[in-house]
Amino acid sequence: GGGLYQLSKAGKLSVPAMNVNDSVTKQKFDNLYCCRESILDGLKRTTDVMFGGKQVVVCGYGEVGKGCCAALKALGAIVYVTEIDPICALQACMDGFRVVKLNEVIRQVDVIITCTGNKNVVTRDQLDRMKNGSIVCNMGHSNTEIDVASLRTPELTWERVRSQVDHVIWPDGKRVILLAEGRLLNLSCSTVPTFVLSITATTQALALIELYNAPEGRYKQDVYLLPKKMDEYVASLHLPTFDAHLTELSDEQAKYLGLNKNGPFKPNYYRYRALISQNGKDA
Amino acid sequence: GGGLYQLSKAGKLSVPAMNVNDSVTKQKFDNLYCCRESILDGLKRTTDVMFGGKQVVVCGYGEVGKGCCAALKALGAIVYVTEIDPICALQACMDGFRVVKLNEVIRQVDVIITCTGNKNVVTRDQLDRMKNGSIVCNMGHSNTEIDVASLRTPELTWERVRSQVDHVIWPDGKRVILLAEGRLLNLSCSTVPTFVLSITATTQALALIELYNAPEGRYKQDVYLLPKKMDEYVASLHLPTFDAHLTELSDEQAKYLGLNKNGPFKPNYYRYRALISQNGKDA
Amino acid sequence: GGGLYQLSKAGKLSVPAMNVNDSVTKQKFDNLYCCRESILDGLKRTTDVMFGGKQVVVCGYGEVGKGCCAALKALGAIVYVTEIDPICALQACMDGFRVVKLNEVIRQVDVIITCTGNKNVVTRDQLDRMKNGSIVCNMGHSNTEIDVASLRTPELTWERVRSQVDHVIWPDGKRVILLAEGRLLNLSCSTVPTFVLSITATTQALALIELYNAPEGRYKQDVYLLPKKMDEYVASLHLPTFDAHLTELSDEQAKYLGLNKNGPFKPNYYRYRALISQNGKDA
Amino acid sequence: GGGLYQLSKAGKLSVPAMNVNDSVTKQKFDNLYCCRESILDGLKRTTDVMFGGKQVVVCGYGEVGKGCCAALKALGAIVYVTEIDPICALQACMDGFRVVKLNEVIRQVDVIITCTGNKNVVTRDQLDRMKNGSIVCNMGHSNTEIDVASLRTPELTWERVRSQVDHVIWPDGKRVILLAEGRLLNLSCSTVPTFVLSITATTQALALIELYNAPEGRYKQDVYLLPKKMDEYVASLHLPTFDAHLTELSDEQAKYLGLNKNGPFKPNYYRYRALISQNGKDA
Repeated sequence: GGGLYQLSKAGKLSVPAMNVNDSVTKQKFDNLYCCRESILDGLKRTTDVMFGGKQVVVCGYGEVGKGCCAALKALGAIVYVTEIDPICALQACMDGFRVVKLNEVIRQVDVIITCTGNKNVVTRDQLDRMKNGSIVCNMGHSNTEIDVASLRTPELTWERVRSQVDHVIWPDGKRVILLAEGRLLNLSCSTVPTFVLSITATTQALALIELYNAPEGRYKQDVYLLPKKMDEYVASLHLPTFDAHLTELSDEQAKYLGLNKNGPFKPNYYRYRALISQNGKDA
Repeated sequence: GGGLYQLSKAGKLSVPAMNVNDSVTKQKFDNLYCCRESILDGLKRTTDVMFGGKQVVVCGYGEVGKGCCAALKALGAIVYVTEIDPICALQACMDGFRVVKLNEVIRQVDVIITCTGNKNVVTRDQLDRMKNGSIVCNMGHSNTEIDVASLRTPELTWERVRSQVDHVIWPDGKRVILLAEGRLLNLSCSTVPTFVLSITATTQALALIELYNAPEGRYKQDVYLLPKKMDEYVASLHLPTFDAHLTELSDEQAKYLGLNKNGPFKPNYYRYRALISQNGKDA
Repeated sequence: GGGLYQLSKAGKLSVPAMNVNDSVTKQKFDNLYCCRESILDGLKRTTDVMFGGKQVVVCGYGEVGKGCCAALKALGAIVYVTEIDPICALQACMDGFRVVKLNEVIRQVDVIITCTGNKNVVTRDQLDRMKNGSIVCNMGHSNTEIDVASLRTPELTWERVRSQVDHVIWPDGKRVILLAEGRLLNLSCSTVPTFVLSITATTQALALIELYNAPEGRYKQDVYLLPKKMDEYVASLHLPTFDAHLTELSDEQAKYLGLNKNGPFKPNYYRYRALISQNGKDA
Repeated sequence: GGGLYQLSKAGKLSVPAMNVNDSVTKQKFDNLYCCRESILDGLKRTTDVMFGGKQVVVCGYGEVGKGCCAALKALGAIVYVTEIDPICALQACMDGFRVVKLNEVIRQVDVIITCTGNKNVVTRDQLDRMKNGSIVCNMGHSNTEIDVASLRTPELTWERVRSQVDHVIWPDGKRVILLAEGRLLNLSCSTVPTFVLSITATTQALALIELYNAPEGRYKQDVYLLPKKMDEYVASLHLPTFDAHLTELSDEQAKYLGLNKNGPFKPNYYRYRALISQNGKDA
């Protein structure tokens, strides 16, 4: 989505665009719920590490980080969080994670997982201080989060122990286990459940249909979020998989709430509505 | 916030207003994190019920419902969810709750908790079918969620067993335990932690300061959300309580992310940004 | 139970005795499952503390400690454990708790909970180093775990702020909140669910019936555990409360397992069998 | 262990034997903690199934079943338990699982996991009623738990879709996914962490050393559990992995508790002591 917004800001977007990546179902499923499982899967398939009792630091407490933290905590790991955003940091506190700077725990952790979208979140200086046998991997949005380039120096030896798994060996024999050369663990070393693919593909298809069918003038050369009602439609198509039964509003209830019985069910300002204004109106 | 939006829509709002209720920190703390604790507290103080093994249905899976579900599940209750919104319903599925219609489980549950903001979510017909000794209470936004009025009929006897606790007795001797006469359990039968009061009061104070100090023209006669940077400021003021240490962006990282080192840290379209447009622009 | 074993060892036990305290259902329900709830209840009723984000140290990781740790972790507290027994310590690690010495965390924790059965687990020296506003309480077996006597010195002021809650005030104004003067929090400041009372009372009644009805010679002047089959009987009497349905063995399966279809269902050496030998035979 | 006890009972055991399988650390690590991870690993590697929202029935709530249930619940599955033993059934209730007979849920579950040690826990009749696409696997002690032989009939087609994964196809096209042909999933489709192997190997080595070094007469031709002190020793050897710090008893505390400062730390009748008497003394 980021690139589209930059194009839009620069006035260079020549067609309406739909930011499906930030639709609620896509966000929750691709990121939180999918990563909650793929972090475990990716670590097991590559390293067979036991989670119980391990000290792990998760860099970034967005949707991906929340998923990783929840899964690892549930399996008995002790999880620390690093954050730059005080709101996410406070959420991490309330969810039971110590919020630290990476340097505070770098010498003691068994696993580092980056989920920030930022660059050089783990630096060579920090990798130098990690324990022998510790694991470093990336679940974020790019392959820049771990400064892998800094590890390609003559004094360090790389040993490929199996597909997607390198041991980086320091002169004193210390080994740090680097997964997927710092690329995305969930794409490189794990699988994506068909259920999540279905959510994503349905969202994309509906966005294209909406853009194609929309009456002249509904969308300008800007970036839009999927209309909430379609987001709800994607979700409703996937409920039967879980044998989930929706409650229907009575006429009286719909009137009381000021809602249409068929949705959308949330007022526009609902937390996950997330409309984007490109014109600076939002303070 | 709802009333303000109606005033605004009707063109009757005579001053700028700040919807502090939907600021991120307020939402998360007052609702999710606070209710996660007050549902347990409120039930214990009034009924001494053991949570382990109890079957509970939570009506509504918004922030309040999520908090109630998480707490009760963690303490060994078996929790069902009812929902009208397919997105929230799918979230409930992924979080491990069966999504049902109330009628499917009404005969078997030990506790009903309403968190919908809707009216008549639990009807007399449903109360008639509940088990002897079951508990009904409300954590939602009004005292209309349980149709309490329908219980004030001659064939039912009310017995006040202690403050905020009534036994409603059917002719066959069946007792249903009604808490706070259907008013908010968290306000009537539980306490609000000072920490949450501090979050709320700080948010309100900052909103007033912003409205007072804002240059002419920044705010019109409309409803606004707290600027994200202030929301972040509220959060940052409360981090020392938890001895939480924020990570600071380097100049290089801030540039890479296109962010100011002092925030705001999320792009406007971030999921919890929740800007309100009153002018219909949002599809 | 301890006193009976000492009498038995000293040859002073004049009748057969049944150690109902160590029966499986009693242990699990009175200790683990009951304390999982009463630690939350006791802390809330006395202090209204918010659990989310709080740092807590639980001294002792037996059944009571496990219950306290599970509940507090689930509600977002960060929990440390102290232990003297390496097996319990390793369990705490695998369950996701850092195992520390009390002195390592004494300056940072918000709450200390003792569950050891030991004496002077929290000393005056340690109380001196606690933070302002921190809470100290006891969930263990006696009122000796916290060295409360050491706090009754002239330089400290005691202020009773409400029933069961004292502020102990240091000369510099620091306050430590002492609950129930160091007596059992779960008995002093919380309630015991009727369900747990029923388990306990049933177990005690069955033990008396067994001792009364047992043929001459089945029991000597020693301490016995409740026969496993009766323990199972207590449990089976309480299953209907949860609408739980037991599976019955087929004849073929019972034969395959070498079990009677009506139980007992576990071989004698099963982990929770816990036979007591008083004669030193057990290595 | 079972075979040794039968030999002992029959008077055919010609040497002392140590039942290391039932030592506390072995039990907890090989079973509960290891299976908590390997159930997830085994299911992912073979089927890529998403856990969130899936309905799962776990047959048997011993250590293995507890581990499976805890892991799957934590990742958002809805878990049912079947049990023959009322004590374990009551534990399942308190841990938040519905206890059902398999037939009650057979048509709705997505996954069946057997952990009983019993035979024919899942019968052909039940397999006939499972949903299309459901998964059947075994985490128990033998390959008899699922009646796999009953599936080798002419009207059913077997399709090997990948190593360890068979689709069994009914005449109407329904497919049931059978893992490892009903053999142990954790051995066939998952890995065992080196940490667990270390616990097991250490326990076995210490048992052999004890039997070899024991003075004449300490052990007769019977089956013994590892002396508790050695069990503790195994645990203490593995604590540094987690940087866990044991608390040491003071002289005064050791005297108060009647314990040696170096252990063993639990009285013989402690729940996990589990001494075996073969002479019928235990009621």
